[in-house]
Parts: sequence; C-alpha cells; structure tokens
Amino acid sequence: MTFTLQHTDGSGTNARAGLIQTDHGLIQTPIFMPVGTVGSVKGVHLTELKDDINAQIILGNTYHLYLRPGIDIIRKAGGLHKFNGFDRPMLTDSGGFQVFSLTGIRKLKEEGCEFRSHIDGSKHFFSPEKVIDIERAIGADIMMAFDECPPGTADYSYARKSLNLTHNWLERCMARFRETSPLYGYNQSLFPIVQGCVYKDLRQESARFVSQYDADGYAIGGLAVGEPVEQMYEMIEVVNEILPQDRPRYLMGVGTPVNILESIARGIDMFDCVMPTRNGRNAMLFTANGVINMRNQKWQDCFEPVDPDGTSAVDTLYSKAYLHHLFKAKELLAMQIASIHNLSFYLWLVGEARKHIISGDYNDWHRQMIPQLSRRV
Amino acid sequence: MTFTLQHTDGSGTNARAGLIQTDHGLIQTPIFMPVGTVGSVKGVHLTELKDDINAQIILGNTYHLYLRPGIDIIRKAGGLHKFNGFDRPMLTDSGGFQVFSLTGIRKLKEEGCEFRSHIDGSKHFFSPEKVIDIERAIGADIMMAFDECPPGTADYSYARKSLNLTHNWLERCMARFRETSPLYGYNQSLFPIVQGCVYKDLRQESARFVSQYDADGYAIGGLAVGEPVEQMYEMIEVVNEILPQDRPRYLMGVGTPVNILESIARGIDMFDCVMPTRNGRNAMLFTANGVINMRNQKWQDCFEPVDPDGTSAVDTLYSKAYLHHLFKAKELLAMQIASIHNLSFYLWLVGEARKHIISGDYNDWHRQMIPQLSRRV
Repeated sequence: MTFTLQHTDGSGTNARAGLIQTDHGLIQTPIFMPVGTVGSVKGVHLTELKDDINAQIILGNTYHLYLRPGIDIIRKAGGLHKFNGFDRPMLTDSGGFQVFSLTGIRKLKEEGCEFRSHIDGSKHFFSPEKVIDIERAIGADIMMAFDECPPGTADYSYARKSLNLTHNWLERCMARFRETSPLYGYNQSLFPIVQGCVYKDLRQESARFVSQYDADGYAIGGLAVGEPVEQMYEMIEVVNEILPQDRPRYLMGVGTPVNILESIARGIDMFDCVMPTRNGRNAMLFTANGVINMRNQKWQDCFEPVDPDGTSAVDTLYSKAYLHHLFKAKELLAMQIASIHNLSFYLWLVGEARKHIISGDYNDWHRQMIPQLSRRV
Repeated sequence: MTFTLQHTDGSGTNARAGLIQTDHGLIQTPIFMPVGTVGSVKGVHLTELKDDINAQIILGNTYHLYLRPGIDIIRKAGGLHKFNGFDRPMLTDSGGFQVFSLTGIRKLKEEGCEFRSHIDGSKHFFSPEKVIDIERAIGADIMMAFDECPPGTADYSYARKSLNLTHNWLERCMARFRETSPLYGYNQSLFPIVQGCVYKDLRQESARFVSQYDADGYAIGGLAVGEPVEQMYEMIEVVNEILPQDRPRYLMGVGTPVNILESIARGIDMFDCVMPTRNGRNAMLFTANGVINMRNQKWQDCFEPVDPDGTSAVDTLYSKAYLHHLFKAKELLAMQIASIHNLSFYLWLVGEARKHIISGDYNDWHRQMIPQLSRRV
C-alpha cells in the first residue's frame, strides 16, 4: 500500500488531498468509508454501493464477522472480498471497540480480553495475536491493531494504564503481523491506533509511540465518545502535529458532516461512521442544506425530489412526500432510500472537500458549508 | 383498456396468451402482479421493479392507501402513479379483503361496512360508492369492485346471503363507476369479482351475474382461503366455462408457483400474491428447481450463486453462503435479495408459461415443471 500526498491546502488549514494505492484499487483522500458491519452495508445492494454511492473503500467489523459467519466460512470463501463480492478496498477494525462497548461480561488482562458474544452469550478470547490472525483471514486491505477503548469518561490514571496496555498490544500486533503473511495473494497493511482519551500529554506520547513503527497509515481512536467536540478537535491537532505527514490518518468512528469538514481541516484523511446508515434508517437525511427529519408532518404533501441537488439516483427518483409516507408506514424501502441518500451525500461531501483542497480554497468553502450543514430543515 | 386473446393452448389445456393494452402500457398475459401494499413493493426499488424484475403491472391496496398516506395526499400527488413513480399499469383491489380479514371490529350492513383501522383503531365506513370514489382518486388503470369476502369455512346459507350482497354491491359499484370519470386524463377499467365460496352453483350463478356487465375484465375472489387446492381448481374451471373468452380473468391472491401453472392451465390470465415477497422476507426462495430455505445450515459454505439459472441481477451477484449469512445476521439486505429473486422468478415463470402457450406445448411443459417446483431443495 502506498500513500501519495498530492496537495496540502493553501488557504490556511491543514487539509490534505492524497491517493492511497491498494491491490484492490485506488482511494482518493479525504475519503469516507461506509460501514459494512457483518459484511453488508445495511439496506444497500453491492451495485448501489459501487455505482451509485461511489464507495471507494468499505469497512467490516472484525468482532461481528468473527461471530457471524465465523472465520472458517470467510476463509473458505477466499476472504471477505470474495464472500460479499465487494472487489474494491476494504478495512477491518480490530474488534476492540465492540468488545469494550457491546459485550456485557468481559475480563481484561495483559494477555487479552475475555468477552461474551452479544448473540448467544458464548465465551471468547481476543488477544493481539488472535485478532491479527482473524484479520488476516478476513483479508481486508487495511487491518487495525487491537487496542483497549477506554470509556469517554475515563480519568487520567485509568487512561494512563489503558494506554500502556494498548501500546504493549500494538507491539504484539506488529510482531504477529510481521511473522504472518496475507492468505489470498494480495497485500495487507496494519494501522496502529493512537489512544490517550482527552489528555494532551497521553495523546502526544501515543502519537510518538505509534510513529516509530513506520506503518502504512495511522488511526486516531477513542474520540467522539462523549467528550466536548472542541476537545476532540484539539486532540486531533495535537496528534496530527506528530504523526508523519506522508502517511494517511484515519479518524475512527467520526462523525457528522460538520465533524468531518472540521477534521479534514485538521489533517485527517479517512473517516468511517454508522451515522449515515443508522440515522438514515431512523428517517434523518443529511443534505448540503441541512438535516431533514423525514417523519415531520410537513413533508406529507411536498412532492419535490428527496434531494434536488443530490448525486444519487434515489434523490430524484422519489419525492419527499413519498419517502415521508414510506417512513410512516414503516416500509423497508424507506430505510433503503435514506441509507443510499446519506451515504451518497457523505461521499459527495468528502469529494467536494478534496476538490476544494486541490483548488486551494478549502478554508473558505468549509466555513461556508458548516452553517448550512448544521441547519435543521 | 383492450384485451387481445392471442393464443389458446393447442396441447389440451385451457391456457391462454393475450395482450392487455392500457393507457400506461402493454401487459402480456398470463402475468403476475407484484403487490405494492402501501404503494411500494416491500424491499424493492422502483428501478429494480422495472429493469430487473420486469414487472409489467403492480397492485396497490385500497384499504392501506386509504388509511396511509390517505386519499387527499394521493389526489394532490396526481394519483398513485405520480406518487410512487411507477409509470406502468397498476391495479387496485377494493379493500374488501382487508376490511374483512385485517380489521377487528366491523359492522356489515346492506349499505356498506363499518370497520376500525388496524393502525389507530379509528372508525371508517366503506360503501360500494365510496370505494369507487377512492379508487378513482388512487387512479389505478384497473379498479376492483367492492365485495364481501366470506371466510373459507362459510356454510352454504352464509355463502348464499353473502353472494347476494356482493352482487347488489357490484350493481352499485358499476353505477358509480359509470357516473364518475377518471381524474388524471387516462382511462380506468372496473373488474367485477366472482364469489360463491366452494359451492359450484353459487360460483356459476356469480359468473353469469357478473358477465352481464360487459366489463373489461373479470376477477375470481375468495379462493385460496383454506379450502383444499383441488376444490380451488374445480371452482376456477366452473367459473371459466361461463366467463367470456375475450376478457382477461384475474385470480385474486393466488398463489404458489404450482397454483399459478395449474390455474393458467384452467384459463386464468392474471395473478397477484404476497408470497414471493412475504416468504422471501422469511428466507424462502422459489426456484425452477424447487423451494429453498435459505436459513438451512447446509448453505453456510455453499459459494455458488443464489440461483445460477435466475434471471435477476441478484441471482448471480450474491452467493448462497452470503445470503444465508445475511439471513442469520438479520440484515435488511437479505430480505431485499430474496424479494427481488422471488419476484423475478414469478415473472420469469409466467413469461415461460406464455412462451409455451404460444409454441403450443404448455401441457407437457407445465406437467414437467410442477414436480420440480414442488421440491424442497
């Protein structure tokens, strides 16, 4: 995997435009990655994902895929690309976040973490080595290191302890990664994750620690977990001052369209988030003119297109009145339309950001966009 | 609306191939009509319905559309075609079946029927005149008369009384239909419905009664409601001996692929049923080689296409193992894939039936198909 930094914004932000080359194709950054939790982006067909939404890379969740369909099945299929048919780049998280947020009973030790499946309560154990083996078997182009994800409210001493564990686990992940090979004939990269909660010195220490590995890219984890948004932006700035310029930077699990533009301005290249699909299923549409609650009665006789300026086929194929009706009637199609619209919008947004970075007016553009994006229509 | 009887089977059945011309386009019969209960075929995009499934006509439910979004909204939209964007022919049932099967509290009188909404319990009243007005406002190309749908277990005296009511209501539907005009600049037809439960003399009387109206087409209702399947076929034979040859015959709410081939052999031209979508959402796939339960563990590592012989894009885009996984993980995409597959298969099946009627070997072909269709794979 290679990263080419093509442009840095000339208008006073740290925004960057780049190109990631993987064995499954190119990714133009900044980029948003739709989340395909169990290998499918909820409510979205493969063809829609590729041809309409223009997803360049999608994410799979190691925790979910490990439990269902299970690693044996994915290995037999020849990896996740073969299993779900998405032949463009993919990224897997490490399961850390899910183990620490979804599973009730867990025992955290230096060795690893014991947890119970949220599906059937069965006991499982993830260690850094095991997670790397699983991610090899899933076969995503980009794998993430196994980390502890402390809660957003963690105090300094917990955050300190947790960071040590995450760093020890990173060392073990890297070792396992080096001593194993890809299973399916194409290359895989492993991204370390910067942690440290909202503590500047811990974030700096973590950024320095991970940078020593000369990885193909780096991620920032543990943000957007309840802290004030200004603190999140500050942590991104602190970390990005240290992370190498010539590697992509992935802000995990973030966020709203505004969060994304603010984070691009601070030098982030990659994003993933369930918001476009999860909020879409709940009738919330993100648009360039603000956020729409499709359940609002006022749309019942608004026969204009879902999003007259939208780039997806569903934006002009269906009317707001019809989509409103589908949500009221709890029709599957409502969730499908909203998911496609929102993902298309997110991909459009990062694509526009890229254009404005290249044309050198990102600062003006994103300052203009932010109040529009935050409107409640 | 015109109906051209193009071919009658020369191989010993009463199967027919025809052409229905409506202001929204042609329908090649025999035809299957996907059910779009509240104006959307569940889990299926408009583009998929037209381009992949090749639906020539879809059905909307008057009862559901009347309650949600409501007739005012549909009228404001300019009719259901404009509201949901489907620009091919549509048919609306009369709401009779839903009023008598879905709503708990109802008062049946000569004048009409009082019922409570299954959504909010609100009281409503349907009379033949009101239903015609509603169907005019929905604006389907083919409207159905308002009938009483007696339960499948109705005894003779109930069936007799019910049939009289249905015939009186038909007279009033026809009168209202004649004294009203289409609202949206294209023509609408009204089909009477033959009732009479499983009583041969009542079915004959009903077929004779409805035939006197010189309608554009006729429907057979009240079958596949629990009676033995041979009784259903017998009733179809009895009725089709009387209904005019030169008008399309629509068997309401039927059925399995086998039911459809058997009914085509007995001279039926049009079908609708929720089975392909409802059973699809429940992991049952209909194929030319039998019925597949996609939840069956044996598919977990079967990486062949969903249906190697299928005509829809989803049939070869996804594997059985992946679809099995999506059902186990309760992913929306599972229901979408199965719905598209099943509808495509139903449309393929009636299309093949048509070809074999035209080529004159329907009898052999359908006898060959029936055991295959009934297999449990």
